[in-house]
Amino acid sequence: MSTFGTLFRVTTYGESHCASVGAIVDGCPPGLELSAQDIQTQLSRRRPGQSDLTTPRNEKDLVQLQSGLEHGDQRPHDYSETDLYPRPSHADYTYLQKYGIKASSGGGRSSARETIGRVAAGAIAEKYLKVVYGIEIVAFVSSVGKIHLPSTFAPPSLMPLNTDEVDDAQDALSKDFVDLLSNITREQVDKYTTRCPHPETSERMTERIVRAKNAQDSIGGTVTCVIRNVPAGLGEPVFDKFEASLAHAMLSIPATKAFEIGSGFRGTEVPGSQHNDPFVRGESGTLRTATNWSGGIQGGITNGENVYFRIGFKSPATISQPQETAQYDGTLGSLAARGRHDPCVVPRAVPIVEAMAAIVVMDQLLIQNSRKTAASLLPPITTLPPTMVLPKKDA
Amino acid sequence: MSTFGTLFRVTTYGESHCASVGAIVDGCPPGLELSAQDIQTQLSRRRPGQSDLTTPRNEKDLVQLQSGLEHGDQRPHDYSETDLYPRPSHADYTYLQKYGIKASSGGGRSSARETIGRVAAGAIAEKYLKVVYGIEIVAFVSSVGKIHLPSTFAPPSLMPLNTDEVDDAQDALSKDFVDLLSNITREQVDKYTTRCPHPETSERMTERIVRAKNAQDSIGGTVTCVIRNVPAGLGEPVFDKFEASLAHAMLSIPATKAFEIGSGFRGTEVPGSQHNDPFVRGESGTLRTATNWSGGIQGGITNGENVYFRIGFKSPATISQPQETAQYDGTLGSLAARGRHDPCVVPRAVPIVEAMAAIVVMDQLLIQNSRKTAASLLPPITTLPPTMVLPKKDA
Amino acid sequence: MSTFGTLFRVTTYGESHCASVGAIVDGCPPGLELSAQDIQTQLSRRRPGQSDLTTPRNEKDLVQLQSGLEHGDQRPHDYSETDLYPRPSHADYTYLQKYGIKASSGGGRSSARETIGRVAAGAIAEKYLKVVYGIEIVAFVSSVGKIHLPSTFAPPSLMPLNTDEVDDAQDALSKDFVDLLSNITREQVDKYTTRCPHPETSERMTERIVRAKNAQDSIGGTVTCVIRNVPAGLGEPVFDKFEASLAHAMLSIPATKAFEIGSGFRGTEVPGSQHNDPFVRGESGTLRTATNWSGGIQGGITNGENVYFRIGFKSPATISQPQETAQYDGTLGSLAARGRHDPCVVPRAVPIVEAMAAIVVMDQLLIQNSRKTAASLLPPITTLPPTMVLPKKDA
Amino acid sequence: MSTFGTLFRVTTYGESHCASVGAIVDGCPPGLELSAQDIQTQLSRRRPGQSDLTTPRNEKDLVQLQSGLEHGDQRPHDYSETDLYPRPSHADYTYLQKYGIKASSGGGRSSARETIGRVAAGAIAEKYLKVVYGIEIVAFVSSVGKIHLPSTFAPPSLMPLNTDEVDDAQDALSKDFVDLLSNITREQVDKYTTRCPHPETSERMTERIVRAKNAQDSIGGTVTCVIRNVPAGLGEPVFDKFEASLAHAMLSIPATKAFEIGSGFRGTEVPGSQHNDPFVRGESGTLRTATNWSGGIQGGITNGENVYFRIGFKSPATISQPQETAQYDGTLGSLAARGRHDPCVVPRAVPIVEAMAAIVVMDQLLIQNSRKTAASLLPPITTLPPTMVLPKKDA
Repeated sequence: MSTFGTLFRVTTYGESHCASVGAIVDGCPPGLELSAQDIQTQLSRRRPGQSDLTTPRNEKDLVQLQSGLEHGDQRPHDYSETDLYPRPSHADYTYLQKYGIKASSGGGRSSARETIGRVAAGAIAEKYLKVVYGIEIVAFVSSVGKIHLPSTFAPPSLMPLNTDEVDDAQDALSKDFVDLLSNITREQVDKYTTRCPHPETSERMTERIVRAKNAQDSIGGTVTCVIRNVPAGLGEPVFDKFEASLAHAMLSIPATKAFEIGSGFRGTEVPGSQHNDPFVRGESGTLRTATNWSGGIQGGITNGENVYFRIGFKSPATISQPQETAQYDGTLGSLAARGRHDPCVVPRAVPIVEAMAAIVVMDQLLIQNSRKTAASLLPPITTLPPTMVLPKKDA
Repeated sequence: MSTFGTLFRVTTYGESHCASVGAIVDGCPPGLELSAQDIQTQLSRRRPGQSDLTTPRNEKDLVQLQSGLEHGDQRPHDYSETDLYPRPSHADYTYLQKYGIKASSGGGRSSARETIGRVAAGAIAEKYLKVVYGIEIVAFVSSVGKIHLPSTFAPPSLMPLNTDEVDDAQDALSKDFVDLLSNITREQVDKYTTRCPHPETSERMTERIVRAKNAQDSIGGTVTCVIRNVPAGLGEPVFDKFEASLAHAMLSIPATKAFEIGSGFRGTEVPGSQHNDPFVRGESGTLRTATNWSGGIQGGITNGENVYFRIGFKSPATISQPQETAQYDGTLGSLAARGRHDPCVVPRAVPIVEAMAAIVVMDQLLIQNSRKTAASLLPPITTLPPTMVLPKKDA
Repeated sequence: MSTFGTLFRVTTYGESHCASVGAIVDGCPPGLELSAQDIQTQLSRRRPGQSDLTTPRNEKDLVQLQSGLEHGDQRPHDYSETDLYPRPSHADYTYLQKYGIKASSGGGRSSARETIGRVAAGAIAEKYLKVVYGIEIVAFVSSVGKIHLPSTFAPPSLMPLNTDEVDDAQDALSKDFVDLLSNITREQVDKYTTRCPHPETSERMTERIVRAKNAQDSIGGTVTCVIRNVPAGLGEPVFDKFEASLAHAMLSIPATKAFEIGSGFRGTEVPGSQHNDPFVRGESGTLRTATNWSGGIQGGITNGENVYFRIGFKSPATISQPQETAQYDGTLGSLAARGRHDPCVVPRAVPIVEAMAAIVVMDQLLIQNSRKTAASLLPPITTLPPTMVLPKKDA
Repeated sequence: MSTFGTLFRVTTYGESHCASVGAIVDGCPPGLELSAQDIQTQLSRRRPGQSDLTTPRNEKDLVQLQSGLEHGDQRPHDYSETDLYPRPSHADYTYLQKYGIKASSGGGRSSARETIGRVAAGAIAEKYLKVVYGIEIVAFVSSVGKIHLPSTFAPPSLMPLNTDEVDDAQDALSKDFVDLLSNITREQVDKYTTRCPHPETSERMTERIVRAKNAQDSIGGTVTCVIRNVPAGLGEPVFDKFEASLAHAMLSIPATKAFEIGSGFRGTEVPGSQHNDPFVRGESGTLRTATNWSGGIQGGITNGENVYFRIGFKSPATISQPQETAQYDGTLGSLAARGRHDPCVVPRAVPIVEAMAAIVVMDQLLIQNSRKTAASLLPPITTLPPTMVLPKKDA
């Protein structure tokens, strides 16, 4: 494909007649002094129109560096606090430890601005999934600080479970929540600036965020996401189970701290006899599950039910109120962030969660497509013991 | 390295004089009729001693298939219930959907027996990490059903947080819990058959598991794991953040449903001003954090503090009591598992969690080792603006 | 899938009821002191039957190390020459440089014995390719030392090209060679111990190999391989072009030094007007090429014609005659290999080449299967300019 | 790192304050109707400044598509020949077979213009390799059509080898060629528009290229490349041997057909006794090889000697003289390329070869760095048998 290398990894793009061509270089050792001219020299040796022996097309092939250089074009600036302090719970200190160099601008690649590329890529995946499979991916804010959706709408982890044994597993997953998962749309979500599609809760969340903002503080929250119409059979055994890939994708989003699929942590408290999702005959004759504690995944593979999961985003580390903390040299002092920051990231995190979900589904779908096609071309197995009746291939 | 291919993936092992040589083949399309002879034919064309033109060493190179064949050597057996029923919340149904074929033996690669290989590999990683870095990885059972460690010992997600604003973040992380993370050993954990290192809690957990067992039922739980002495700087920006890799690894363990790092879901409720981990001067002159809500990771990169995380394991799906559920053909019936099964997996999951943690640390360490070595060989940058003083390389 | 990690890479195998379960661990730092007990300790903590709380199945889960340990169970032996000398053109010296440690047994993972795993994996791929696509992969020995197939049967690189401009490109590719590619079978190849399917040439090759053997010397050769009935469309743009993957696979076989696809090096001497493969209408209405200088690949993608390529294997480095060479400490001396070695590897290399070819085709096929399936599910594009008529999807 | 996914692969770039941020999306199914608006919708949901609850920074985050869309902004054009004909030996036909869709502009990703990204990335790698290791990578044109460097300067594959046994292996590798490899610089190469650093040969090559150009034809050639000062120990055992990675990289360059390392195909004709590279004590006390038939690689691992290899580039498929060939519908006709094309690509291929070589060395170096660092931190092994004396770690 378009990527080469393991630790020094090059990904190129571009064709004959497109707007630009280029490459993303990943894994360059930090601290390398590099100028555009270092690159231009070789581009100029490659470009057309160098001599009578090459094509007379005269193209300049001028290099443009989009990101990754720290100090090349930096404006001189005064000694500022961010030169002295590693911001608490930011990447300043860990990036310094990792790269042995301070990024001049914010948190380097840990910046939330990086997620723009994810959202763009996710939108492409999503278009395909929608057109071909009718897959719908909708995320919404399920909590801000301690303000949660009411328990009837709550994901399993937030449901009250008063008794040790749930009386009736069929009822245990709140019908309101199940309906919410089945019907919620982005349009409904976007009616609320909080992106929490429950009017009263949204109003309380707004107040909570405004309170954090006014206090020059910040607050965290959770995002719940549902993927509808996922074909059964996605996810790879062992290390790339569907939920493992989802967890990887979600925990790679800046500020995330927690992930749960289906019944999540709360599910660990429910006995197997109640937690198991019994099979029933579905409308189209295929099997379905009566409940969906599993969150649409069993044994790491999707079963065709709604996939739903919840992600925890911590309170943003950047706050304007002064914090007692040490400078790089260990001197204790007080740091207050300047600039304008999000007091709560979850409303804007919604499309990022959707994008990463789309990317995971798309990738797992393409992998499973390959297997399914490959298997469908095989002749029937002739050595099956008589009691082993294979289901039809189109299952 | 020893692996070739993207979807059809071959990994070989073996040398000149070792016990055996072989390969793991991943991604073979399901439903291929295959016999040992199919492979032997080509091995025999490759083996030494075929003719006078080759080495006279006479080696037989006989193929032995270890796993993956479904029906080749299967003993005839009676029509059993597992031929009729997809077991609820098992991989039977999803594997059938994925592969178009029913595994004759349990859940195929979703079997917990697969984790033996992980534990073996993790033990190798762990040996290195221990010898070179003194890294200690200790996991323990933190809950069984609703039986949790007492709140003073509880991970942040289980701490009571009564007020919206925590009064003193320095005290908010229970000292008992912090001490537990810093001191717990495998020996202490293994004193309890539950692997919960708190006598009273362990006793209550034992009762809970026995109750599940007697009821022919099962119960879930959580495992908390700490990694001590992790060097700062591990984890790759963007998609392979340390917690993303950990989450991927943990959610790939059978029966897992949830993952949280550091303060996890509960941390989303704590304002940034309280949740941030302020820096202080450490004993050796390097910076440390006064609290550790971050779980030892900031911006996706380890900061040198204890890495701790919690994993939710669902109640085992295999239970002996009868369950109402549909057969493959949609007919409703009643299924009761035979055989002897774990009523609760968390005590045995402890070494699996430790193994996957060791594998993640080892892999990220080797990647960071490369970068650090590469960067350390570069001459100082000469174009830094005067106000930009680089920290020393050995930081 | 079944592999986890980038530099420390773990691949597991095994299911519920198979012969064994296990893992291949790749990338463990060399020089780690490791015993089976290091691994057994954790396996024993994971195994069933540890206590009343777990399943009463009593399984031992005893570790068995198959390869990779150097000194654990090594028999004491006298100071031998191989302890003193790095064998010329062997991996002894480079492995020492790479790992900082001397392998006690031959060339470690560079041993040709490693290829057994490849042959086994290739046989599985081949079975699928044969059953579903009728793909045939046949390799044969095309030269031993200076003894080549006669020019009429020769691959393009060995054809005489006396004039600068070839008179008639249609005739330039020897008809005998083209026929050989189209018809040669493994049975025909295996009639000759040399695996060169041309009686006179095979006889001369036999003499050449015997001469090398008698002289306690060795000799190299080339293997030519054809892949018939490859579907058009295999190979990934940019870095994973079909020929790039083939070259990677072939040059990973021990003792290989050269690779050429289609017309290869000789093709560089033929003007484009003669070297281009013009299209003609094929029997089934699809296009075919009149000639096949391209070796079945254009723009990195297969075109449905025979894929053929040639690989050079050097003369084996292990020879019994004394060689003047330096010891590890620089002292000049004389080294003669003991033991029984192949005077020429190409006859035994034939199934290894076929195996690696099968693995490449299989992997590229699975990748392309996925794309083709994904594309086939899309609705027709509605925004095509009127002059852009899309070919039918089944093309 | 910055890439996520197996078949649908997303690579992002960008930081807080850089010129742009974005993503390369690889593996999107062909035929998806996509507009910028599909992407913008989600970007707008993510952007800052959407409401009072988010940061008031007002950023537009407007999407710009650089490449990959076929028909979006295409100017209407007349029915041209390239709509009717698949160009012989181009990617037109195979891309159509692969993607089921005709690229409107040249050969899609098979375009040589794509190599601009490689050259840029290679220049970054090269800078590091030069600064830290003094590694020098110099490629030059070694043949155009039948015009080769004189035999004394020729790579091994082009040396005359009249006798079966070379009399003296030490002399067999032409001294002139060895000197050329050791001393050639880019400045010397660039003195010649052909990039063949031998005046008479360059002149003849120029004539040959001009002749091709005047005949509206094209001609191929070979590029030889040397990598000097490569540390010993690079290359991974088994599948990622150094020469396998190099071959993969080189055969991924458009128009390449052949690769050989060191003595290459010709080396297969030289007996082992002559082909082996005996060790001698080097100046600094470390071992060196007296000859270098191996091309600096033994057992897949670099040995510290010059790495050299040769690549064959076919005659460009685009020629202006009319060619008899079939249209897509099978109708025979005559096609002549319009536009201005390179009659011979090798002069411009030189920096591309250097770039891919730099990328391979850099990647393998980073991998080996990691291992070396990891091994250096281990304590000495205590269980070595007494006769096993380990070399010093810094070897």
